[in-house]
Amino acid sequence: MFAHNKRLQYTVRVSEPNPALANLMLEQFGGPQGELAAAMRYFTQAVAEDDPGRKDMLYDIATEELSHLEVIGHIVVMLNKGIKGAVAEGLAEQGELYRRMNAGSDSHVTSLLYGGGAPLVNSGGVPWTAAYIDTIGDPTCDLRSNIAAEARAKIIYERLINATEDAGVKEALGFLMTREVAHQKSFEKALYAIEPNFPPGKLPGVPEFVNKYFNLSTGPGDMRGPWNQGAQWEYVDGAEAIGNVDAGGDGDASVMLDDEQRELVMKMATRTRSNPDGDPQTGADLGAGPGAGATTGESADGSDELPEDLPPGAGGNGKRATGASTGRRR
Amino acid sequence: MFAHNKRLQYTVRVSEPNPALANLMLEQFGGPQGELAAAMRYFTQAVAEDDPGRKDMLYDIATEELSHLEVIGHIVVMLNKGIKGAVAEGLAEQGELYRRMNAGSDSHVTSLLYGGGAPLVNSGGVPWTAAYIDTIGDPTCDLRSNIAAEARAKIIYERLINATEDAGVKEALGFLMTREVAHQKSFEKALYAIEPNFPPGKLPGVPEFVNKYFNLSTGPGDMRGPWNQGAQWEYVDGAEAIGNVDAGGDGDASVMLDDEQRELVMKMATRTRSNPDGDPQTGADLGAGPGAGATTGESADGSDELPEDLPPGAGGNGKRATGASTGRRR
Amino acid sequence: MFAHNKRLQYTVRVSEPNPALANLMLEQFGGPQGELAAAMRYFTQAVAEDDPGRKDMLYDIATEELSHLEVIGHIVVMLNKGIKGAVAEGLAEQGELYRRMNAGSDSHVTSLLYGGGAPLVNSGGVPWTAAYIDTIGDPTCDLRSNIAAEARAKIIYERLINATEDAGVKEALGFLMTREVAHQKSFEKALYAIEPNFPPGKLPGVPEFVNKYFNLSTGPGDMRGPWNQGAQWEYVDGAEAIGNVDAGGDGDASVMLDDEQRELVMKMATRTRSNPDGDPQTGADLGAGPGAGATTGESADGSDELPEDLPPGAGGNGKRATGASTGRRR
Amino acid sequence: MFAHNKRLQYTVRVSEPNPALANLMLEQFGGPQGELAAAMRYFTQAVAEDDPGRKDMLYDIATEELSHLEVIGHIVVMLNKGIKGAVAEGLAEQGELYRRMNAGSDSHVTSLLYGGGAPLVNSGGVPWTAAYIDTIGDPTCDLRSNIAAEARAKIIYERLINATEDAGVKEALGFLMTREVAHQKSFEKALYAIEPNFPPGKLPGVPEFVNKYFNLSTGPGDMRGPWNQGAQWEYVDGAEAIGNVDAGGDGDASVMLDDEQRELVMKMATRTRSNPDGDPQTGADLGAGPGAGATTGESADGSDELPEDLPPGAGGNGKRATGASTGRRR
Amino acid sequence: MFAHNKRLQYTVRVSEPNPALANLMLEQFGGPQGELAAAMRYFTQAVAEDDPGRKDMLYDIATEELSHLEVIGHIVVMLNKGIKGAVAEGLAEQGELYRRMNAGSDSHVTSLLYGGGAPLVNSGGVPWTAAYIDTIGDPTCDLRSNIAAEARAKIIYERLINATEDAGVKEALGFLMTREVAHQKSFEKALYAIEPNFPPGKLPGVPEFVNKYFNLSTGPGDMRGPWNQGAQWEYVDGAEAIGNVDAGGDGDASVMLDDEQRELVMKMATRTRSNPDGDPQTGADLGAGPGAGATTGESADGSDELPEDLPPGAGGNGKRATGASTGRRR
Amino acid sequence: MFAHNKRLQYTVRVSEPNPALANLMLEQFGGPQGELAAAMRYFTQAVAEDDPGRKDMLYDIATEELSHLEVIGHIVVMLNKGIKGAVAEGLAEQGELYRRMNAGSDSHVTSLLYGGGAPLVNSGGVPWTAAYIDTIGDPTCDLRSNIAAEARAKIIYERLINATEDAGVKEALGFLMTREVAHQKSFEKALYAIEPNFPPGKLPGVPEFVNKYFNLSTGPGDMRGPWNQGAQWEYVDGAEAIGNVDAGGDGDASVMLDDEQRELVMKMATRTRSNPDGDPQTGADLGAGPGAGATTGESADGSDELPEDLPPGAGGNGKRATGASTGRRR
Repeated sequence: MFAHNKRLQYTVRVSEPNPALANLMLEQFGGPQGELAAAMRYFTQAVAEDDPGRKDMLYDIATEELSHLEVIGHIVVMLNKGIKGAVAEGLAEQGELYRRMNAGSDSHVTSLLYGGGAPLVNSGGVPWTAAYIDTIGDPTCDLRSNIAAEARAKIIYERLINATEDAGVKEALGFLMTREVAHQKSFEKALYAIEPNFPPGKLPGVPEFVNKYFNLSTGPGDMRGPWNQGAQWEYVDGAEAIGNVDAGGDGDASVMLDDEQRELVMKMATRTRSNPDGDPQTGADLGAGPGAGATTGESADGSDELPEDLPPGAGGNGKRATGASTGRRR
Repeated sequence: MFAHNKRLQYTVRVSEPNPALANLMLEQFGGPQGELAAAMRYFTQAVAEDDPGRKDMLYDIATEELSHLEVIGHIVVMLNKGIKGAVAEGLAEQGELYRRMNAGSDSHVTSLLYGGGAPLVNSGGVPWTAAYIDTIGDPTCDLRSNIAAEARAKIIYERLINATEDAGVKEALGFLMTREVAHQKSFEKALYAIEPNFPPGKLPGVPEFVNKYFNLSTGPGDMRGPWNQGAQWEYVDGAEAIGNVDAGGDGDASVMLDDEQRELVMKMATRTRSNPDGDPQTGADLGAGPGAGATTGESADGSDELPEDLPPGAGGNGKRATGASTGRRR
Repeated sequence: MFAHNKRLQYTVRVSEPNPALANLMLEQFGGPQGELAAAMRYFTQAVAEDDPGRKDMLYDIATEELSHLEVIGHIVVMLNKGIKGAVAEGLAEQGELYRRMNAGSDSHVTSLLYGGGAPLVNSGGVPWTAAYIDTIGDPTCDLRSNIAAEARAKIIYERLINATEDAGVKEALGFLMTREVAHQKSFEKALYAIEPNFPPGKLPGVPEFVNKYFNLSTGPGDMRGPWNQGAQWEYVDGAEAIGNVDAGGDGDASVMLDDEQRELVMKMATRTRSNPDGDPQTGADLGAGPGAGATTGESADGSDELPEDLPPGAGGNGKRATGASTGRRR
Repeated sequence: MFAHNKRLQYTVRVSEPNPALANLMLEQFGGPQGELAAAMRYFTQAVAEDDPGRKDMLYDIATEELSHLEVIGHIVVMLNKGIKGAVAEGLAEQGELYRRMNAGSDSHVTSLLYGGGAPLVNSGGVPWTAAYIDTIGDPTCDLRSNIAAEARAKIIYERLINATEDAGVKEALGFLMTREVAHQKSFEKALYAIEPNFPPGKLPGVPEFVNKYFNLSTGPGDMRGPWNQGAQWEYVDGAEAIGNVDAGGDGDASVMLDDEQRELVMKMATRTRSNPDGDPQTGADLGAGPGAGATTGESADGSDELPEDLPPGAGGNGKRATGASTGRRR
Repeated sequence: MFAHNKRLQYTVRVSEPNPALANLMLEQFGGPQGELAAAMRYFTQAVAEDDPGRKDMLYDIATEELSHLEVIGHIVVMLNKGIKGAVAEGLAEQGELYRRMNAGSDSHVTSLLYGGGAPLVNSGGVPWTAAYIDTIGDPTCDLRSNIAAEARAKIIYERLINATEDAGVKEALGFLMTREVAHQKSFEKALYAIEPNFPPGKLPGVPEFVNKYFNLSTGPGDMRGPWNQGAQWEYVDGAEAIGNVDAGGDGDASVMLDDEQRELVMKMATRTRSNPDGDPQTGADLGAGPGAGATTGESADGSDELPEDLPPGAGGNGKRATGASTGRRR
Repeated sequence: MFAHNKRLQYTVRVSEPNPALANLMLEQFGGPQGELAAAMRYFTQAVAEDDPGRKDMLYDIATEELSHLEVIGHIVVMLNKGIKGAVAEGLAEQGELYRRMNAGSDSHVTSLLYGGGAPLVNSGGVPWTAAYIDTIGDPTCDLRSNIAAEARAKIIYERLINATEDAGVKEALGFLMTREVAHQKSFEKALYAIEPNFPPGKLPGVPEFVNKYFNLSTGPGDMRGPWNQGAQWEYVDGAEAIGNVDAGGDGDASVMLDDEQRELVMKMATRTRSNPDGDPQTGADLGAGPGAGATTGESADGSDELPEDLPPGAGGNGKRATGASTGRRR
């Protein structure tokens, strides 16, 4: 169970309110790479983990991330302290509140909808979702996901530090950024304390396909590097790469149907078949005007010439030549 | 630009329709660890990448993932071929379609809403969202995210293989699973071809905090391991761990307000202050009945005794003793 | 900042694994009325709160809700313990894992995608979203929202208790349910410790409209009760209720445009005007078959008679009478 | 399966970086009417389609849309090239990065969270969701959905062209816009190559209701036009329109319950009945202050007069008259 | 403004409760093709529409769809009437409520979370989202979107009718289905009452690209039909189709950078460059075990042979051969 | 069923177009506290309600909220009237449309994607979701939710009034705001017309836990007030509060497994165990550069000193000292 102490893990000293900067900070409060995502990622893993060492580590770090959520939340709240009062009490001068609400970077959502608080949304106002959490309950996967998540969180803090002039905010962000580095190291240790850990899970890769690299993007810029060259790779190129890879297969999909199923599929196919012959008149034909290109009964080479007074190039404002369009409609 | 060949990368041979199994397969079609997520993850990275080697690799693998999306999509479609016809054409026997729609694992959504097709939802019917993609535009982060994503995809395929009896489906899934292993290896190579790659980004960790491990979860099960012990770690425990860590800080949050801001905050605080004294009557008091515990004017020790005929234990169905509740309401 | 002790706030004793029941429990883990929603609701309010009494209370209860999240999470994990091993290690018997995955109530998502863990989704597999949190940064509103949220959480626990046979689970749920009752009482006290607290905010209601009740739904079942009768209500009925209520207004919307704006609006209106005269042939006319009703050039009274062999009532499977439809298409 | 060539389908020549414009372009990358939606819409239809002509066409166009996704993605990336370097490397001048991040139109999300890349979000930062795709597995429906989708995409491109000054961007957008026109024409042809195609599906409309038009919105502005007048329509107006339409029905909903069900419903109804008599004191009564209107025991006509110094009109800042509110609370 | 009469537009007579069927019906209550989507689609268009005829029609139909929402909602509620009482009052028999909650098709969500009501979710429990509405404010687009939406709604009703045995439900669904047909006809008329209506908007298509069809999917199954053959099409095939289409372009993307931008991009490129030479050891190498394929220092042809006792085929349960993996790790 | 009159419930007189203000107004159109949420909240409750008084009241108020949705929608549309024409028709001056689209507060989304209409999104562009609706089908809960929702809506209107200079908009907003006050009063009356109404539901609270208040957040700022002091509370503090509360429990979670389950759990635990001994080399070790802190084989106290020319404090731009990093990599 949890206990809480009202002192923050790291003291927050903000020099002055700035709701637009507060909004950027929300990225690490309710954003995909933020502290709630981190805390919940590790907490839910801890709850389900059976290995005692990992369980303890996950609880340790989840608890710290909750404390970080509190620190970044207070940065947001301090930066919003000015707008919060203005939103709640109103301002005497007409239009002044409107101007302050539109200070930049979606701060209007934070002030109007959330009253200058610390909502669990990102800097664009998108509510936090558990879809951000990619835990699947396999420890070698989840630790890799954690390693990547810590790396991402480190970078978002770095960007915020670079975008901030306020020395007190910068300092607290520096602490938070550094802890992501330390956490990444712990998760790396925990991953390599499982032996072996690659490939994840139990089933081995099929030997025929596990060392192949398919060169499927060709043209100017084709490159070789350790990711597709060297003794451990089979580099598959050209026609071989873009053919189907199973020997003897025809690259088709098939299923065995029973009689009833076959009959129903046939009925549906017959009922909804496209007639490849003929040239049916369409709704587009009915409504076609200038700029529609050739329609039924016309030739693609020129019969759809635009009125001569149309400005050249894509994006001209074609005057509607009603005479031409009348002729086309029937 | 892309080109397409109607042969699949891997031949799909399904033994018989099974819409509930089809539904499980959707996890790798429109689920968070599925092939659309993989293809779009790498494709969007490729588009934004400036390093020629990584750009080429990302396009190669993105293109292969699109081809995998096609393979798993065809597995879904073949498994759904029976229900698709039945949904489109109806069945003579009353109630039979209802029974088939409820074959299991949310297949009712796939048949009713999507007509037995291959929708971009997961096995629970949740639509795919780009919130699944954690690309942030830093190569050492994105490659770590890719490594983790491939590991996760490998495991979901392993689970599907374990859950499948159909030999043809198992074989195709084995191919797809193996390719995730190969892709993970390529991404690992690409990560370590960047030197150094840790910590990600440019800003160094703050030396004071980068080697510390805070033991924030205590009690039975506290563990040590390479993630928090050894020469490179400072293990911080006890009161030191749960105190605020910045020397000289008070663990509080502060901001400098100008006069107007201070006045507005004060006005709001005064207007909305909670009076800690007294014991106001509340809405709960007004409506309280049995089982509400003590309310205003009552004592917590016993005056809220439940009617004697109440079954013991949590969860008894308390008969409503109107006499008692009458006395409480006013 | 937070600290954690690995002992749960309430001991969890589950009698046997049951993944379908685990899935129902997820409603209070990652569902809209669940413990994460509660914890984050109060935590984010605490972070932004300036009133010392409310801030302390919100932290106290947020911390307890995190501990509840841990308890319900462990219930889920214990109920999933059997499927978790089976998913990870596979089962010897063909098809057995498939059957266990489909145990009921979306447990297939929990086992296949989340490996039998405790994901932050509801019982239908929908990921938790901060859209569930309705905090707006006004204390009299937020306390009312908290009161309602506690009431809802109490009821979901009651439903889970009624749906559970496992005595250990029932007991732990009884504890959790009861705490929601206690929390609601605290929030009620805190609301009424603000005087006055209604209407919320500063602006008074417009006297003309604040006591009116508009009877806008009429017909069988019209009722009077304290919500619309008595001295404090003006009951507005009949034509008066469904007319616009501002004296002298015409119920229209208007805006003053400058010349450029008026010209652009006119151009758009002209360009996209609907011609109310005539009877244009449409795409539906082009493709109409039996059952389409009357189309252009036909009369609504009978010319669309269905083929005589069509079964009576809504829902007959009309055989396609190509002769009839040929006559209709042009 | 897919193959990729690193040459774009259309050359992209951007004159200079502009992150706010990049952000608008995201609408066609990860927005609801954008190219990913188009590509996935057609690709998933192709995978499930049995008709050979439509299947081929859907693959052709899906593949082209993927190539368009790549073109618009490169427009975004080129427009973001300046901010990308600044975010990654930092800027020497204090505050300059903050200013550039707030260049307009949610570009702060793109730079801060996505590092100046090409994320699958719309111009407001909302992540792409498969909820945008309305495919239901019926060809005459899906083709109509495709026709509408192409029309919408055409218009968004038109708006982007109108909003862009950069000639190179305008030109590429012109190409993309035009292709939507061509695709719409193909889908129209494919729809009308199914005969008949209206109404979609097999079940005919119920003759009694298929030609009726109910005039349910009345008052100033009632109009007639080909959508509700002419030989093929029965125009139903007045009391007939707003009455229930099934002859002999009472407009009520009913279900047959067994004894146990009836008893449970009764128990619930009794337990939760609203007492229509009396005038209970409420929570709002307990907390009412000025501006609350009349509360229990007061009359609606005047007893809630606001303090005299209140400014006239809706929206005045009522000074809190504590004397008045004291008298109201009990 | 709206008025309401408590009589339904169509009488609902349900023969007996069936919560699993209720759940399927939710598809048309809170699903993407359901009545709320329809009502809000037309209502929001009506509010913004300037053309008097379309505005009136949109209000008429929006109002009817609200009435349909009420009808389908009552079908849901009647089918849920049995479970609603059981959830609220509990059942005497242990485990019976659990069994009824798991009646099928996600009805457990409806009963547990929504108490047997009529929630705005689809049959899979996914909450309704305005992302379902594709209105963009252009009348020729929005009418096409409406036409497609009506066609889809018609089909979902058809599927529900086919899946239902209850005669009263079938009859009401038949009414609702038929009205979609009538609405589609009105929207078709309104579309063709705008002349011309194709292409939508003002900008003409670029003549060079408006008549071309690119054959981008090749291989077995290539087809011709009216969508790509006939006088009005230029069919572009082979190398011409998969090359970039702008004459003189190189298929590359470019942007002009100023000096500072170029320097920053260079710095980032240098700092994060991938070294294409060498063969760095990776994390996967560190953790590799059996089934990993060749890793650094190994050859792709055979050195990764799996232990001999491994079962053949994809999906064998490889026993962990610790000797082999020890030799591989370093 | 519903009927509609084209006169608005309240006349809307907007002084001039202002798309950024329009965007703020969207908060009450498609935002979480807006009128669609209100209308659908009460409408869905009305449909499922059995109590005649509440059912009638819910229909009355739902119908009024739909009329409010129409009023606020028209405010949005009038404020957008200028940008709508410009987006549809284009503007002659280059770049002028771009500037107008970026008028502030996410109005670029409304103009670009929605054409200056009235979309069901909030002021940040987030689509409306039924996740905003917290109805659970229990009347005492739902009424409390409604009370809270009305209070929140009142405040958002108050904020909008404070942020608006336009007298006509202010007046209409004042009407809408006032009606929320009146609705809250009706819902309060309806709640207290159910006797008793607390705790909600049937199951009583467990007496042992219903009166306890756990002081789980300690440190500076601990407070007492009516929410945790007085005769009806047991205040639990210190070690007692943070211990597990069930007498005799050990705070652990347990489940009885059968033999097969136990064996599978053991197999998984063994296969994925973390080795707590040793100090494995990790991926972070492989890639470590300056600022990474100590890595394997190094000591935490000083060996990771940063280059001497690094600027002091968190956030310095560490020059990359390649010499140092070479020594660290192996």
